Amino acid sequence: MLDHIMQTTLLLDEIKCRHNIAMMAEKAARNNIRLRPHFKTHQSAQVGGWFREAGTTGITVSSLKMARYFASHGWTDILVAIPVNIREMALVNELAAKVQLHLVAVNIETVQALAEQVQYPVNLCLKIDTGYHRTGILPHSHEELDAIVTLMEQSDLLQFTGVLAHDGHTYKQTDADAIRTIHHTTVFLLNLVRDRYKARFPALKVSIGDTPSCSILQHFSGVDEIRPGNYVFYDLTQQHIGSCNFRQIAVCMACPVIAKHPERNEIIVHGGSVHFSKDSLATADGSLIYGRVVDLSENGWSAPLEGIAVVSLSQEHGTLRASKALFDRYTIGDLVGILPVHSCLTADLMKGFTLHDGTQLEHLSGMGR
Amino acid sequence: MLDHIMQTTLLLDEIKCRHNIAMMAEKAARNNIRLRPHFKTHQSAQVGGWFREAGTTGITVSSLKMARYFASHGWTDILVAIPVNIREMALVNELAAKVQLHLVAVNIETVQALAEQVQYPVNLCLKIDTGYHRTGILPHSHEELDAIVTLMEQSDLLQFTGVLAHDGHTYKQTDADAIRTIHHTTVFLLNLVRDRYKARFPALKVSIGDTPSCSILQHFSGVDEIRPGNYVFYDLTQQHIGSCNFRQIAVCMACPVIAKHPERNEIIVHGGSVHFSKDSLATADGSLIYGRVVDLSENGWSAPLEGIAVVSLSQEHGTLRASKALFDRYTIGDLVGILPVHSCLTADLMKGFTLHDGTQLEHLSGMGR
Repeated sequence: MLDHIMQTTLLLDEIKCRHNIAMMAEKAARNNIRLRPHFKTHQSAQVGGWFREAGTTGITVSSLKMARYFASHGWTDILVAIPVNIREMALVNELAAKVQLHLVAVNIETVQALAEQVQYPVNLCLKIDTGYHRTGILPHSHEELDAIVTLMEQSDLLQFTGVLAHDGHTYKQTDADAIRTIHHTTVFLLNLVRDRYKARFPALKVSIGDTPSCSILQHFSGVDEIRPGNYVFYDLTQQHIGSCNFRQIAVCMACPVIAKHPERNEIIVHGGSVHFSKDSLATADGSLIYGRVVDLSENGWSAPLEGIAVVSLSQEHGTLRASKALFDRYTIGDLVGILPVHSCLTADLMKGFTLHDGTQLEHLSGMGR
Repeated sequence: MLDHIMQTTLLLDEIKCRHNIAMMAEKAARNNIRLRPHFKTHQSAQVGGWFREAGTTGITVSSLKMARYFASHGWTDILVAIPVNIREMALVNELAAKVQLHLVAVNIETVQALAEQVQYPVNLCLKIDTGYHRTGILPHSHEELDAIVTLMEQSDLLQFTGVLAHDGHTYKQTDADAIRTIHHTTVFLLNLVRDRYKARFPALKVSIGDTPSCSILQHFSGVDEIRPGNYVFYDLTQQHIGSCNFRQIAVCMACPVIAKHPERNEIIVHGGSVHFSKDSLATADGSLIYGRVVDLSENGWSAPLEGIAVVSLSQEHGTLRASKALFDRYTIGDLVGILPVHSCLTADLMKGFTLHDGTQLEHLSGMGR
């Protein structure tokens, strides 16, 4: 199969990927909680099919456009986990007409606009800022929370269904205890908010969603639903955090060697920021890497090699620095396997996946504008 | 027109863009040198048409795929300014059969593969590393240079046409004299290499290609051809370098406001790393920004506002931090204009452009895989 790869290609290991999907499904089942996986990492109808085979019925996406894509592939229970863009109300209504649509409420203005303009039932979760400070309502903002809840209560079409958080700050941690502390703080705060409204809304759910917490924790008391996404592929960032080991990383770039520089042991591959994105990872000595190198074989790849890494990216070029011994192993025209730092962005840029048998899987970003 | 923008959109100001195109064409004409603009920044058949109207006949691209796209739009003189990926020899031949194809030679192995496998005439430039140290042959590597030149001389189909450099290190400068010094060093070194072979190849051309040098210098002695690309749009990085002023930046993102956080004067827009890329710019105090905010109007945008900037990006969210006065000006659902840090990567991610009259222009990345 490798002989048929002519260009920079994103390989997907179906076995590893299905294993990751099954692992999280089993963990959710063991805890008797709902798994609503985030599909922004793969954005692929076919990978979505693997989730369906593993029992997934409800999904999470990060834009209305992504919701429309998966709705067109038969998904009927979709949470759009980003504050609603009220300029896209026509699309909200288009989706609400045909699927069970869940949106997040982060401010009164948006809920007001929804209350006035939705034409079909829409489920709303309160997004609570439990410490990440990107977006969400602070858990002690009782006045704002009460006003939004009252507005939902008065609407015939808006259903208040739960409270939700995204602990993006776990991605900055590399210590399991730090991640557990963040998780438990979030669960505590979400339950405080739920408890404020549970007399009026007895069915309210608590939903959390980051891959580090969902990977590291084994027990989820106080939680009804988890929404991890990156675990479908994992990547070097998640390995660095401690969410996975290298063997669980299910995607790998195959990049042709286009130049070699023996005077500085650098290898140039066709694979730059338009393929990988510019996300980097700091190493122990403070230098940044943009990917780690593996040996490719017909049906997989090795653990990362020591003594070689991607040290810089420009638009189309990637620069690898190697030990002399590793430098000498590569020839112009060879394919180098590179594990990505951030699989979500790499998949978005590569616009599709190639399985070990050569099968091509689609990605929403490859479907035109 | 702004009322019709529902989603995150990349606006292109045709007047500014055509002005940038004309400015560089006039500078090249004044210096009596060839302009072979790099099309990787726009990757658009329609923007290419504006270059054609300004007299451009030969172009530069950064991949064979991009060469195929522009060949399909009538371009017949195309330089692929990246070391050849010898795994794509079938595509090299497909292109060489129908256009005047120029490739760059950076090592003997690639030239050997080309000599053995090309079926149509191909022009080859020696890529010289004059200080950027990404790729290219060092100017004093006479043995290597001689071997490659002899190989080209022995081939019936490979035509040795010139020497070429890309001074990517000018992008790290913010001082015009530093850029001039880099440029003059490069021109001196390229001429040394040309002089070594000019008795055997009297028509050899010297070609240089970075936007900072081509923008800042007015005179180009010792140069036959320039290949700048980013100047078609410019961006915050080029303004920071000193290549352009803010008024010359021809692209601007329009991002809907989806949340506001008065407790920290932060505004959240739908516009993240899948829209902008992760490129950032260090400010005077060392903090990073990912874009600067402008006021949008029906036919353009203002200079950047002081006191508000994009301070972080996640996959779909952008976080703006503002002064209290500016924070209060924005309402949920408003469109915010944001000048990008790196227009090449933003255009690649946005997959197309919207003109002020609503016309949509394509980008190669929006044409499917």
